[in-house]
This record gives sequence, structure tokens and C-alpha cells, in this order.
Amino acid sequence: MAMIIYAYLILSVACFFCFWIAGMDWFNAINHAMATVATGGFSTSDSSFAQFDSLIIHWIAIIFMIASAAPFVLFVRLMVHKKFLFLSDTQVRGLLKIIGLTTLIISAHLMLSNQMDPLRAITMACFNLVSIITTTGFASGDFQTWGQLAWVVFFFCIFIGGCSGSTSGGIKIFRFQIFGGLVKEQLTTAIHPKAIISRRYNNKLISSEILSSSVAYIFLFAISWVSISLILALTGLDMVTSITGSATALMNVGPGLGNVIGPAGNFSSLSDTAKWALSAGMLLGRLEFLTLIVLFSSIFWRS
Amino acid sequence: MAMIIYAYLILSVACFFCFWIAGMDWFNAINHAMATVATGGFSTSDSSFAQFDSLIIHWIAIIFMIASAAPFVLFVRLMVHKKFLFLSDTQVRGLLKIIGLTTLIISAHLMLSNQMDPLRAITMACFNLVSIITTTGFASGDFQTWGQLAWVVFFFCIFIGGCSGSTSGGIKIFRFQIFGGLVKEQLTTAIHPKAIISRRYNNKLISSEILSSSVAYIFLFAISWVSISLILALTGLDMVTSITGSATALMNVGPGLGNVIGPAGNFSSLSDTAKWALSAGMLLGRLEFLTLIVLFSSIFWRS
Repeated sequence: MAMIIYAYLILSVACFFCFWIAGMDWFNAINHAMATVATGGFSTSDSSFAQFDSLIIHWIAIIFMIASAAPFVLFVRLMVHKKFLFLSDTQVRGLLKIIGLTTLIISAHLMLSNQMDPLRAITMACFNLVSIITTTGFASGDFQTWGQLAWVVFFFCIFIGGCSGSTSGGIKIFRFQIFGGLVKEQLTTAIHPKAIISRRYNNKLISSEILSSSVAYIFLFAISWVSISLILALTGLDMVTSITGSATALMNVGPGLGNVIGPAGNFSSLSDTAKWALSAGMLLGRLEFLTLIVLFSSIFWRS
Repeated sequence: MAMIIYAYLILSVACFFCFWIAGMDWFNAINHAMATVATGGFSTSDSSFAQFDSLIIHWIAIIFMIASAAPFVLFVRLMVHKKFLFLSDTQVRGLLKIIGLTTLIISAHLMLSNQMDPLRAITMACFNLVSIITTTGFASGDFQTWGQLAWVVFFFCIFIGGCSGSTSGGIKIFRFQIFGGLVKEQLTTAIHPKAIISRRYNNKLISSEILSSSVAYIFLFAISWVSISLILALTGLDMVTSITGSATALMNVGPGLGNVIGPAGNFSSLSDTAKWALSAGMLLGRLEFLTLIVLFSSIFWRS
């Protein structure tokens, strides 16, 4: 436990120094380092990372957002056992694959449709996607001006989240991977009805308890998403604002989509009712997460 | 098996006579009876049921859409064993509850915000909600003009679907109920960690096989939804059209949301690429369903 706090502090200090050396003043470097490692996404300006006209600063943020969305137990193993296990971890590999794939789609789209130069396109795409996927919530520009494809990609990215055991929220990579494993299992048993398949994740057996609680989490999330979206719509907000606003609150991401709460907007113009509903959503998203830690920690992450 | 065909024929003929007596000409009555019992939603006119200015015809359609979204095995039991088991069936009760709740929300909204008279408001709300929830796809007016709340309610209703063992598509009531049962189980074990809970549905034990295949179905649906939405967005369609178009195709509903494919629009203006993607989606939605029948039928519906 204490080691996890050390890991967190070391990451924050390292992030501060990187930002500072790359040209941020000390005040911005401290604030953005804290908001990066917490995958919180608070910035000192409404323009978020668009205020820093430096590709290096953006890449530092990308690296530290990804690091903070990785399971912290891997940092502890690095510190205690001197073992670099990040690239062999199923969950981290899944996270990197999703970031790679979405960055490829969006940066290709930016280069081909918006004639952006390659380095800038990849930086812009990667920064904003990593920010949404890791539930950090920084923005380096209004990705809503990047065309219809960007809207759809960012819409679905709201739901992903980082790795379990990190500072990020969202549905999280390991749940998608467990569900993906079930799909493979179903296809295998459809072809070989007598096949005996052991459910494994990260070289450990998946208990039925983990499966049940993952399904229960998704269902609770779905009910909360529908309920809060309905409340937001009742306050007069349009459908895109309602469904992305409730999702971004429940997943602890930050920006939603649309003219009001998009990456270039904010939640200030929303009614009090909407703000209370979104606050409940942010808390719910975190509480379900905490409940899961209680249920999972001793079973799933026992090393 | 033969009894299910009889049940289907009897329902279709009964629906035809009801429509005919209520004032449809024989051609419209035959076509709409077939499209109702198949929960298909084809109409003889672009204006769908808005062409019939009769509340009685709308209520006949509502009753037969709900009947066709009920498990057909219950009709067989009614015919063979003379037992009316609809209201004691967990799945049918779930379907009726969802229809009741959504109709209450939307008709109250129509009366209060749009000053519609009560009978017309309840009929309009119930008809269009039942049409979407049972994946039939008829429309009796453009519910997109009913305000933001209607958009959000209809958006989420696309995903519900009727009962397993009926003609309707969608995720289906029993999956939601199984997932809901898991949530209850998680809450119970959180409070009473040593509680032994037997998973039951409709007074039968739920095997882990049913749970796994339900989760696999949802995950396959989610992957297909994201993929087809991306293809639609690539053809230049806006986000709402892309995400509701792919969802309505996969769920075999019919109308989507937005100016193009909403209840007052149609898919004719979409590009060939979009139409191929949507066709694949409609087929996929049905094939997953068929796979599930193979996997489930002997295990789950064994009476």
C-alpha cells in the first residue's frame, strides 16, 4: 500500500520535472502534473492544453496519462523487484492496442480529409484520444471540428477507461477483455461442443465471481446512464448533450459532445438540476468502482 | 414446432380481421397484419400508420405487436393446455412494465409540454414506443417533434427488444432480467457475504452457459455497433444518424433518429457503402439471434 503511494508521488514529481524542463512555468507544471497523474484533467485555463504550443509538452502529457492509466501494482513491481512487466501485462497491451488503433484512424482521417501535416495530426489525435480513453479529460483543440468520424470515435471512447488498479475511471480494459474471452469461448464451443475451456486472464483463472460482478457493474452503469440522460433531457438539453453528458460524468472523463459540453465548451450554463444529476453520476461512477475494489482486490489482484 | 406455426397463422388471421373490421380495406389489412405479427414494420405507405386516422386501428396494432413480442410457446400452451400463462411469465411481465413506464413518461410529457389531449397522447406514445421496443418499426407520427425527452427515450428504446422466443429482435427482455438478477445478487452478497443464492429465472435455474452466452451476445453486439457506426460516419453521415442507424439495423427495429433516417424519413438517400454496412448489420443481428437459438433452445426453453 505504502509502495503504491510512493509510486504515485514519483510519477507526479517526474511529470512535474518533464513539464518544467519542456518549458512550462513551475505553477502550470505542478498543476498539470497533479491533474495528469490523477487522470483528473483540471487545467489552469479554459483552453486546457491548447495553451501550450509545444509538441514535446503534449507528448509528455500523453506518456504520463498512459502511465497513470496502467495498473499501479506494475510500478511497485518495477520498484521492488526491478521487473519491467508493463509490456507483458494483458491489460496494458489492450490499452496500448486501443490507443494505437484509434490514433491510426483519427490521424489518417486528419491527414487525408483535413490536410493536416503528419506529426501534428498524430500528436493531436493521440493527445485527445488518450485524454478521453484514460478518463483524464484534457483537450488540445476542438476535435468536434475534425469531421463526423471523430464524433463517432470520441463518442465510443468515452466508455473505455484505463486499466483496473490505476487512477482512471470508465468501464476499464480488463472487463472488455474478459467479455472478449467469453466471445472466443462461445465460438469455440459452437464448433467443438465438447471442448473444455479454462477461463484465464493475465495467466490467472477467472472466477465466476469476477464475471458476475463485471456484468453487474455494466448493468448498473447502463441503468444510471439511462436515468441521468432522462433527467438531463427533462431540463431541456438536446439528446447528444444528454447522453454524452451523463456518460462522461459516470465514466469520470470530463468533456462530452455537442455545442454546450464539448471539448471547447463547459458545464457552466447547465441548470442546477442538471448539475445535481451529473454530480450524482460522477459519484456513482466512483462508488461502483470502490465497491468493485472491495469485491475484487483480494480475489483478483492477489499476486 | 407445428403448433408454433398454427399459433403464428391464427395471430395473423385474427390481426387481419381486426384491422378489416376496424375499417382498413382488405389489401391494407392483409399487409399490415403480416407486418405486425412478424414485427417487421413494412407499410403500404411512407407515412406508415399515420395514414389511418383511427385510434381503434392503432390500439389493435398495439395489442398485436405486444402479442407477437411475447414468447410463442405461451400461445402453444394456451392452445394445447388451455392455460393462459402470459401474465405469470417473468419475461412478458418485464415487457409490459417497460412499455407501461415509457408510455407513462412520454404521454405525460405530451400532455404537459405539448398540450395534447390525454387519449391521443397515450395512443401516440404507446403506439410508437411499442413499435420501437418490439422492433416492429411502424410509426404514427414524427416523435422527434415531441421534444428532447422523446429523443432520449426513443434512443434507449432501440436497444430493448421483445421477449426471447418471439418474432421480435433486439437485446431482449430476458437478458436484461438476468443481468438485473446479477445486480441483486451482488448487492445481497455485499451485505451478507456468506449468503448462498440460487440463480433463477422464470422458476428455472440459470446455468452459467446462459449467462456466458448472454454476455458474449452483448459484447458481439457492441463490437458490431461500433464498427458499423464508424463505417456510416466514414460515408459522411452525422453522429446521431451513424450511431442510431447501425443500432436500428442490428436490432432489426426500422427507424433511427435524426433528419435522414428518423421516423418521418427513410434510408433511400444513403450511399451504397452505408446500405451494404446496414444490410450486414441487419443480417448479423439476426444471425447472432439464430446462433443463440441453437445454443439455448434445448437448455433454456426445455419445458
